Amino acid sequence: MKRIYTFGNGKAEGRADMKNLLGGKGANLAEMNLIGVPVPPGFTITTEVCTEYNEQGKDAIVALIKDDVEKAINHIEELTGNKFNDSENPLLVSVRSGARVSMPGMMDTVLNLGMNDHVVEALARKSGNPRFAWDSYRRFVQMYGDVVLGMKPKNKTDIDPFEEVMDGVKAEKGVKLDTELDVEDLKKLVKLFKAAVLNATGHDFPESAWDQLWGAICAVFDSWMNERAILYRRMNQIPEEWGTAVNVQAMVYGNMGETSATGVAFTRDAATGEDIFNGEYLINAQGEDVVAGVRTPQQITIEGSRRWAKLQGISEEVRASKYPSLEESMPECAKELIATQQKLEDHYKDMQDLEFTIQNGKLWLLQTRNGKRTGAAMVKIAMDMLRAGIIDEKTVLRRMEPQKLDELLHPVFDKAALQSAKTVAKGLPASPGAATGQIVFFADDAEAWAERKKKVIMVRMETSPEDLRGMTKAQGILTARGGMTSHAAVVARGMGKCCVSGAGEIEVDYKARTVTMGGKVFKEGDWISLDGSTGDVYEGLVSTVDAELSGDFAAIMNLADKYTNVFVRTNADTPRDASVARKFGARGIGLCRTEHMFFEGDRIKAMREMIIAKDETGRRIALAKLLPMQRSDFEGIFEAMDGYGVTIRLLDPPLHEFVPHQLATQKELAEEMGLTIEEVKSKCDSLEEFNPMLGHRGCRLGNTYPEITEMQARAIIEAALNVKARGIDVHPEIMVPLVGVVKELQMQADIINRTAQTVFAERGDTVPYKIGTMIEVPRAALVADQIATVADFFSFGTNDLTQMTFGYSRDDAPKFLKFYKELGIIKTDPFEVLDQEGVGQLVAMGTQKGRATKPELKVGICGEHGGEPSSVKFCAHLGMNYVSCSPFRVPIARVAAAQAAVEDAQ
Amino acid sequence: MKRIYTFGNGKAEGRADMKNLLGGKGANLAEMNLIGVPVPPGFTITTEVCTEYNEQGKDAIVALIKDDVEKAINHIEELTGNKFNDSENPLLVSVRSGARVSMPGMMDTVLNLGMNDHVVEALARKSGNPRFAWDSYRRFVQMYGDVVLGMKPKNKTDIDPFEEVMDGVKAEKGVKLDTELDVEDLKKLVKLFKAAVLNATGHDFPESAWDQLWGAICAVFDSWMNERAILYRRMNQIPEEWGTAVNVQAMVYGNMGETSATGVAFTRDAATGEDIFNGEYLINAQGEDVVAGVRTPQQITIEGSRRWAKLQGISEEVRASKYPSLEESMPECAKELIATQQKLEDHYKDMQDLEFTIQNGKLWLLQTRNGKRTGAAMVKIAMDMLRAGIIDEKTVLRRMEPQKLDELLHPVFDKAALQSAKTVAKGLPASPGAATGQIVFFADDAEAWAERKKKVIMVRMETSPEDLRGMTKAQGILTARGGMTSHAAVVARGMGKCCVSGAGEIEVDYKARTVTMGGKVFKEGDWISLDGSTGDVYEGLVSTVDAELSGDFAAIMNLADKYTNVFVRTNADTPRDASVARKFGARGIGLCRTEHMFFEGDRIKAMREMIIAKDETGRRIALAKLLPMQRSDFEGIFEAMDGYGVTIRLLDPPLHEFVPHQLATQKELAEEMGLTIEEVKSKCDSLEEFNPMLGHRGCRLGNTYPEITEMQARAIIEAALNVKARGIDVHPEIMVPLVGVVKELQMQADIINRTAQTVFAERGDTVPYKIGTMIEVPRAALVADQIATVADFFSFGTNDLTQMTFGYSRDDAPKFLKFYKELGIIKTDPFEVLDQEGVGQLVAMGTQKGRATKPELKVGICGEHGGEPSSVKFCAHLGMNYVSCSPFRVPIARVAAAQAAVEDAQ
Repeated sequence: MKRIYTFGNGKAEGRADMKNLLGGKGANLAEMNLIGVPVPPGFTITTEVCTEYNEQGKDAIVALIKDDVEKAINHIEELTGNKFNDSENPLLVSVRSGARVSMPGMMDTVLNLGMNDHVVEALARKSGNPRFAWDSYRRFVQMYGDVVLGMKPKNKTDIDPFEEVMDGVKAEKGVKLDTELDVEDLKKLVKLFKAAVLNATGHDFPESAWDQLWGAICAVFDSWMNERAILYRRMNQIPEEWGTAVNVQAMVYGNMGETSATGVAFTRDAATGEDIFNGEYLINAQGEDVVAGVRTPQQITIEGSRRWAKLQGISEEVRASKYPSLEESMPECAKELIATQQKLEDHYKDMQDLEFTIQNGKLWLLQTRNGKRTGAAMVKIAMDMLRAGIIDEKTVLRRMEPQKLDELLHPVFDKAALQSAKTVAKGLPASPGAATGQIVFFADDAEAWAERKKKVIMVRMETSPEDLRGMTKAQGILTARGGMTSHAAVVARGMGKCCVSGAGEIEVDYKARTVTMGGKVFKEGDWISLDGSTGDVYEGLVSTVDAELSGDFAAIMNLADKYTNVFVRTNADTPRDASVARKFGARGIGLCRTEHMFFEGDRIKAMREMIIAKDETGRRIALAKLLPMQRSDFEGIFEAMDGYGVTIRLLDPPLHEFVPHQLATQKELAEEMGLTIEEVKSKCDSLEEFNPMLGHRGCRLGNTYPEITEMQARAIIEAALNVKARGIDVHPEIMVPLVGVVKELQMQADIINRTAQTVFAERGDTVPYKIGTMIEVPRAALVADQIATVADFFSFGTNDLTQMTFGYSRDDAPKFLKFYKELGIIKTDPFEVLDQEGVGQLVAMGTQKGRATKPELKVGICGEHGGEPSSVKFCAHLGMNYVSCSPFRVPIARVAAAQAAVEDAQ
Repeated sequence: MKRIYTFGNGKAEGRADMKNLLGGKGANLAEMNLIGVPVPPGFTITTEVCTEYNEQGKDAIVALIKDDVEKAINHIEELTGNKFNDSENPLLVSVRSGARVSMPGMMDTVLNLGMNDHVVEALARKSGNPRFAWDSYRRFVQMYGDVVLGMKPKNKTDIDPFEEVMDGVKAEKGVKLDTELDVEDLKKLVKLFKAAVLNATGHDFPESAWDQLWGAICAVFDSWMNERAILYRRMNQIPEEWGTAVNVQAMVYGNMGETSATGVAFTRDAATGEDIFNGEYLINAQGEDVVAGVRTPQQITIEGSRRWAKLQGISEEVRASKYPSLEESMPECAKELIATQQKLEDHYKDMQDLEFTIQNGKLWLLQTRNGKRTGAAMVKIAMDMLRAGIIDEKTVLRRMEPQKLDELLHPVFDKAALQSAKTVAKGLPASPGAATGQIVFFADDAEAWAERKKKVIMVRMETSPEDLRGMTKAQGILTARGGMTSHAAVVARGMGKCCVSGAGEIEVDYKARTVTMGGKVFKEGDWISLDGSTGDVYEGLVSTVDAELSGDFAAIMNLADKYTNVFVRTNADTPRDASVARKFGARGIGLCRTEHMFFEGDRIKAMREMIIAKDETGRRIALAKLLPMQRSDFEGIFEAMDGYGVTIRLLDPPLHEFVPHQLATQKELAEEMGLTIEEVKSKCDSLEEFNPMLGHRGCRLGNTYPEITEMQARAIIEAALNVKARGIDVHPEIMVPLVGVVKELQMQADIINRTAQTVFAERGDTVPYKIGTMIEVPRAALVADQIATVADFFSFGTNDLTQMTFGYSRDDAPKFLKFYKELGIIKTDPFEVLDQEGVGQLVAMGTQKGRATKPELKVGICGEHGGEPSSVKFCAHLGMNYVSCSPFRVPIARVAAAQAAVEDAQ
């Protein structure tokens, strides 16, 4: 078993594809050597040694790898000509951890290891820069003390022994900045730091480079098992047995003087995706100085430098003299860097994020990795590389992070404006986009203000179906309660409207018409801005810019459709939503909720009349009023989806949601219906349920009041025949909600078929239709084989399925799910990301059992998960026919589905 | 393939064990022949022919079996010496359906088939009784018209054409009873009946005996597919392919004169189980006359006759002359009947229910079957037969209908008193037993009245934990809302207290302190009586008698324990309940709900203080007050269960259930805690949830407020150490509720283990304890393999598991489940009888996955299903270690579990 892999001088024992063994960092360091990129020589101790360490303990492992480590140090000594633990030509090294994936909580880095009182003198001599040498020494003692000896305070409020010493020395000298300390000060610091170490640990600071090295290696291994790392692994489901590698590398210095420098760079523009090499550097500096912000970093290329100066309002003269580009200040090094970045991008075939150091005019690469980028850059870079023949179509699709496409679909805040905006609250990013407007608290006001051309943001404790009309008119919605699948969140996403939900700290006072956020009281009419993609709430008006759907975006979509096995439908309740979704590529409607149609104008009156009616006759009279309205709704939707299937769900929510709860409205209803207020009140009260989610709803309504199903079936079939007569290609699919027992579906199907036959006979014309069911009650998945005997299609309603499988009410759960995430009990909100382990078993079981009965059964998903990439992939891998999601998530789902197909093909 | 099986004269082609082919009736008719019991000769057309009939249609089948039927009729002709369709010695037959199980909706019986205008004259001649002959004729036309020709009206309100004719003839003659009609009247009736047939069907009444026979045979087969039969099969899951047999048998007549008779008898007493042959008969009568109640039936034995006369206050002279026994009136026949009943019981080895007819002094048996009996008779007969060596122990157990044991456990109404009692309402039989008392509406009143030695019945819309103390003091509980698993029902069953729940028609007016039932207003203090075994509510005081647990009952229990593989625990929250259950044979506690302990006296105050507290410190102060109370509760329970395991569930219900909802109580609490009323009110309101069942409860509380779990764990461990010091053998098992994610359990287990170690260290003593979890959230069953890594035991909480698997709130579902049962969507209430098809899959999956991880995992059930026989058997078949149920159901569960073991052993 080989435990140590060396690299350096264009050679390496490892490779890029050995990430599991060498960790990500180690594998890339090896790979850069192999392709001729200058990397300081070093070696990697494998992740397997970490596992052995945890099993056998420190002493056993040190004994086991001692010879190999010494040989590997020897290897560095040979390549650098320096010697470890030597007072003439000392070799200093860095020690870094490196797991397969980067992990917070792990020991990160120790620099300058190998330093002691003799070595520092040699370094001062050789560099001709005693301040550099002593500064490196004091940094080393501090860093080693912090990360290896565990002296870093656990809490920010605790005293840091090194900072305390540093503050004392600076105060004594009367200076503020570290850079104001001279060599003598630094010598004093080293002495005092070492005393602090003795004080804290009871041991002298190790003088031997070997002792230092073993301490650091073991500290890396120990950090794999520290509390924070364990918690992180639990939350991210990273197996303990993966272990971490340890990378030991010769030090190089960017702070040795005016011919030394350090910097970071991207091979392309990470914001726009343009193929422009760009980056920043500082002369005579260390890596941390570039990010610290004390000095102004300079641009690497002349072109970049000039653009930067223009934006900053700096003249070309000042720029050239004070902030020259690397191309100007070190033309040779710049040339080599530009060649190297190209070589790395060509090799990795993706945009790279680089770290480099120039030591005395010699360029060294310290790290390369795939660079993070915006959604727009992700799309452009992938398509540019495809067109250049660098990557193939499947790779383009694999590279997409589908969720990031969202950035391309919604208006966004102007980045400049955001910098001066003040955050006053934070909630859940319930529905993406940027919105800005004046606060209103009630749906009526939202409508009235909007009519007067005002932009409004609706602020509510939570929303209910009665708020629907107001929500339509608002720019965005902010709620204090409710999670990612609360009424507000679901409806807003359906509308593609910005929404921040569950902003628990805000206090809404409906009576006073105020909301208190960030310690300030906002009144009705005050301006606020919401970022539905981050959950941020800003004070005042923050300006926005509209999103543009570029040609590359369309190209990605076409690619997705070329490879996918799953088509994407949309959840839409109105012709408008249906049209939007169709523009985004939806091929049909997977969920049209009919209940939303009952809230507008006279409809709610007829609906209430139906509910309050004393008997079937009374209900039929009211239903007859609703029939033409529903029919015309369906006609509009069928027209918008010409040529595609439209799945219409029958009435689902408990009737209680439709009746008035306020005395005034109840009185009104009583007068209209010629009843006493007591009668109306008592009927409304009798509909109250302890747990409405598990109550009299879904097909339980349709089976106890068959006349409701009859009316809806009639409206659907009549609408279909009407639009067919107008030349529309119509495919109605009638979906029965909340089925748990096959007979429930059978009885509904009987009513629908009977009604359809009646209408066909009346009209002398027919239209094909399907009858299917939601699989949303756990029992439905368990007996899916029986249910499939009646159903033409299944649509997994994973919102309710998640509620019932976990026993989480989506309205109540956010309260404890917040803690559950913090405690690491759950990794993701199961209402956002489908719980593949639990709920997913039922989805798989339902699909398999259903198809076992009826191989041609059409299977899809219409819960909110239908637009979440990992969930879409899960459904695609299961072999579903379609996924359905809110209009603005359609592109995301299309790409995720295509990725699943590419994965499956492998 | 043999399609027809003949029998008669001591020979038969069939046997008792051929029920599948011949139906129950046909198989028994054959068997009686084989053992030498006189049965009118006949034949059976097999159930397979019915299946062929449904596949191939009428014509094909008539052609197929024509020869065989003719041969079989020939066989009867030979044995009787009469000829079918003959006007000299006519053969008349009965035609009866006979499936494997008896089924409503099927064509039942046609008697006197073969009759026509010639045959009736021959019959009159031969019997010397023209009235008998013509009466038989008119009955035949009517019966044939009704059941074969389909003239029986579908609704009771429709006009019956035969009754219409009969009424006309009677009116014309000015008489009221059928018996007042003479031969001429009967002749006229036959003519008019036939005209009615022609009018209704368009065809003449068939004169040919053969036509009549084929009509009747096909009608039996057709009735297998009629709507009512199909619905019944669906509801009872009887496969369509079973089919029905047809039995054709020579007619015998009990109404041929004074030497003819008919009767029914039981080989033992069906009420008490005593080994006394008993039954009733009528001379010169048909079977239907015995049950019609027009004439007073006489007793078969002298002994029975004398006992009857005594009860009726009839002197021996009158009895002997007017109501002689069969032993006196027909001594020879009686002797043969007594010998025959003994032969039948000896043969079938069970109490038989017989039908017989005596025709001109010759005894014929028409039917024998196992007799229905009370719970007491069931136990006594089985044990008597065991002691007599007739049946073995396993057969005794198999014969038990466990639910019937219930009758033996509770006080019951005096049967005599019941006859004059007036039923005023009907609800669900939520908790068995009989109760009588004065109406009170509030828990406080129940307590106060009970203190004054009054017997009270609590009448409520529904009950809540706050009513608990009142319920303890009441004789019984009556609620308007809530199903079999409502709070009232569950708590009452736990207490073994009579409860009628969900009596939807009653109207409770708390303000007026009245309840309206059966159109009458009852005030506080009025007497009512409840039958918790039937759901009946009676006006006034109905006297009760106490149940006695006889020696036979104990013997049955011992037998059960000898064979069972599953031990039975009880659900008990108090030492009293625990003791009761132990008397009934409970071997430990499977569910001790700790929350019920928080409602008494000062406890609820401390509990509320804990909930209202602003931070952990405040909560800990309140919890410290609860600790000693909990500890002492546990000590009592541990003592009562000395030697057995006690499973204690940690706090489960949402906190909202504990806080005051009335302003007055909220004010009181505010004063006590030094808070403003607004603060208290706002805290109480903030705990409200949309769906509390799916909200912040169970281990979600224990994980967000770890200090609650800590207090409970401490109370349990301290109590265990305290009783151990007193010599008690204590086995605490701590159960974490509502786990759905393994980490939820892990975090609770960490707290419990930490607390236990602390207490052990404090006391210098230890006690063994287990940690387990409820499996009650569907997800828990799906990931049971993960959960078993932490749990020592699983207890299936099938109440909640049923709620979530079906998506039925147990508080709201009764509203539509009532319709669902009527519509045949569900067969049984899944909260009463475990849904093996759906929920059962999760129970099986959870058990198997759990044991796959940990083969020694202890698995049980503690939902209400733990006391329902079919559910207990399901659990036993799955290999569970125990079931747990309310104390009064323990004996039922013990027998059901033993039955499962006997079945498994076969």
